[in-house]
Amino acid sequence: MDHLQQEFSVRFSYPIFFTSDLFATTNSLFADFFNKSAGAVRRKLLFIVDSGVVEAHPQLLDSIRTYVAQHVAALDLIDDVLVLPGGEIAKNSPDAVETIVDAIDRYGVDRHSFVVGIGGGSILDMVGYAAAISHRGIRHVRIPTTVLSQNDSGVGVKNGVNYRGKKNFLGTFVPPVAVFNDSTFLTTLDDRDWRAGTAEAIKVALIKDRAFFDWLDTNATALAQRDLPAMQYLIHRCADLHLKHIAGGDPFEMGSSRPLDFGHWSAHKLEQLTDFELRHGEAVAIGIALDTLYSQQLGWLSEADADRVLNLMRTLGFSLYQPMLDANDSADVLKGLAEFREHLGGQLTIMLLTGLGTGVEVHEMDDSRIRQAIAQLKRTESQPA
Amino acid sequence: MDHLQQEFSVRFSYPIFFTSDLFATTNSLFADFFNKSAGAVRRKLLFIVDSGVVEAHPQLLDSIRTYVAQHVAALDLIDDVLVLPGGEIAKNSPDAVETIVDAIDRYGVDRHSFVVGIGGGSILDMVGYAAAISHRGIRHVRIPTTVLSQNDSGVGVKNGVNYRGKKNFLGTFVPPVAVFNDSTFLTTLDDRDWRAGTAEAIKVALIKDRAFFDWLDTNATALAQRDLPAMQYLIHRCADLHLKHIAGGDPFEMGSSRPLDFGHWSAHKLEQLTDFELRHGEAVAIGIALDTLYSQQLGWLSEADADRVLNLMRTLGFSLYQPMLDANDSADVLKGLAEFREHLGGQLTIMLLTGLGTGVEVHEMDDSRIRQAIAQLKRTESQPA
Repeated sequence: MDHLQQEFSVRFSYPIFFTSDLFATTNSLFADFFNKSAGAVRRKLLFIVDSGVVEAHPQLLDSIRTYVAQHVAALDLIDDVLVLPGGEIAKNSPDAVETIVDAIDRYGVDRHSFVVGIGGGSILDMVGYAAAISHRGIRHVRIPTTVLSQNDSGVGVKNGVNYRGKKNFLGTFVPPVAVFNDSTFLTTLDDRDWRAGTAEAIKVALIKDRAFFDWLDTNATALAQRDLPAMQYLIHRCADLHLKHIAGGDPFEMGSSRPLDFGHWSAHKLEQLTDFELRHGEAVAIGIALDTLYSQQLGWLSEADADRVLNLMRTLGFSLYQPMLDANDSADVLKGLAEFREHLGGQLTIMLLTGLGTGVEVHEMDDSRIRQAIAQLKRTESQPA
Repeated sequence: MDHLQQEFSVRFSYPIFFTSDLFATTNSLFADFFNKSAGAVRRKLLFIVDSGVVEAHPQLLDSIRTYVAQHVAALDLIDDVLVLPGGEIAKNSPDAVETIVDAIDRYGVDRHSFVVGIGGGSILDMVGYAAAISHRGIRHVRIPTTVLSQNDSGVGVKNGVNYRGKKNFLGTFVPPVAVFNDSTFLTTLDDRDWRAGTAEAIKVALIKDRAFFDWLDTNATALAQRDLPAMQYLIHRCADLHLKHIAGGDPFEMGSSRPLDFGHWSAHKLEQLTDFELRHGEAVAIGIALDTLYSQQLGWLSEADADRVLNLMRTLGFSLYQPMLDANDSADVLKGLAEFREHLGGQLTIMLLTGLGTGVEVHEMDDSRIRQAIAQLKRTESQPA
């Protein structure tokens, strides 16, 4: 039968900058980016800032206003900087997206203007989504403020909000036009957030990069003691691996593979089962421990290697057991496997380890082996090392 | 300063099929597409159908159920076919998108299942948007039922809904995975919809393809008399030109140019000023007439060529004058120029003609010349030819 075939490619390109004191009047990085892209027509800048970041950095909004007025004269700052609550819970309500879309409408922010999000992963997810659906996509800039968002979610191409409690049910794949990783924001993180973000670095090292794992192992104590240069290296290396994975694979996940989700099937479920008391990175650390022990039980990973993984996470301060793991004889957490299958579109694909730095995909997991791994975690975590 | 640069391309590919009686049990086209892409895991099919189409084709829902059961055994039809009102007005309410997203959630439609929209441009816009934002993009299939959607919007990459009365304020660029143009649906269109869709064909011929304009001129009477093979040729040729324009240019409109919007700055405004009593294609015909006369006034187009354009549209049955054109001394319609500038992101780009089949972009239009063109339209339309 007669048909036409449409074929085209769309090229995406964006820089990820690493800096400190982004809005110091001596730092030209942010201004250079915008002044370079300024044209004859005046563009607008709409800022949305995480309320937790404003609390930790009370001078931030003034600094932004002063900086833009002095250095980014080609753009018009919308004086009404939106300050919105961050965190996973905020993604459950449609309010934030509605507030941002409403501001885009009221202030006449067009497709060639910029929406700038400052905050953790949740704020960036909400800002990215609101920008993506307004005018079929307004340019958005991310300024991630947590370890997790600087090394992982903030440099990627996804956005999303929850719908009826379902995580990221609404969202799109739309890259930012630029990411600014400012290490100054890391200094005010609480210890839990500082630590939690390292879980994604451990994850990507374990499935892709043995040398990075060895570096993490060597520097675990420094990281636990909040050594900033060590954390900056971790973030840079992890972001680089994450970016290469996206560019080298299936950026908009049109296929079924999600290799970067190592340790995540149980992590997503544990977050939910603990009403998000467990933060994402903390849950991922437990998920990594579980799938590491599972890999060991299959005979794919030596006991010594599995111990190194678990001990690294303990040195960083992670707790690797959570009572919800065996609530209801583990039936609750095992539901996470079914939900992960559904999320992937019917076929389960799980990453396991055949060595430190080597991930391999499988399409099934055995419930009784999972229960054994949980029992092992419970045993080792309840005893002093 | 230290930075990483992310770079990748995403390839999009989809077929546009031309057929008749798509759901006749003897037509394997639809089944072949889905059976080819079926894998080990069972996918679902969620249909959303324009209520106007169901009225004109009361047997359609039964035909779909019978067809899928008989021929697309690899997929599970969701029995609850959603029937929703179409038309531009429907895009003003968030209800349809909410209904579709809710069904995607309730019936567990995953990213590798399919959402199929059947109807005019508005239904397809709403279905495409709901699919695009659910699970970060569920595969969607378009079955356009009007001339306009079969030759223009339905084969493209945009979706959208209105927000606070602003046309397509919310939307994304996401291509369908397949388009099925079924000529049977054209036979039940009322005369206005049959005619209105030809305006986009005249538009694309005028700016890109002299031979196609000559064909339209030669076949205007046949088209006006509802000759189906002539209309099928028009749709195929117009869709092909539209697809090539998208693939050869800037598919997701990251730049500022919108060359396919010839005649549209006033058309969008006239639709709104008439409370959408004027259909999109009817408004586009007036917009084409206006910008053709404007091109003539600039000395870019001969009077004979301008007359051919206007006479072609008259033969097709279009009315080329609408009283709103000079309401409030034309100040109302001229606002459309400012709104078009804002929609494009600050710099105005308007397509005009330097010949039949040759468009050229300009960045300003003169109000008094526009008023002269309006006066000329009013004069010629109020006199018998």
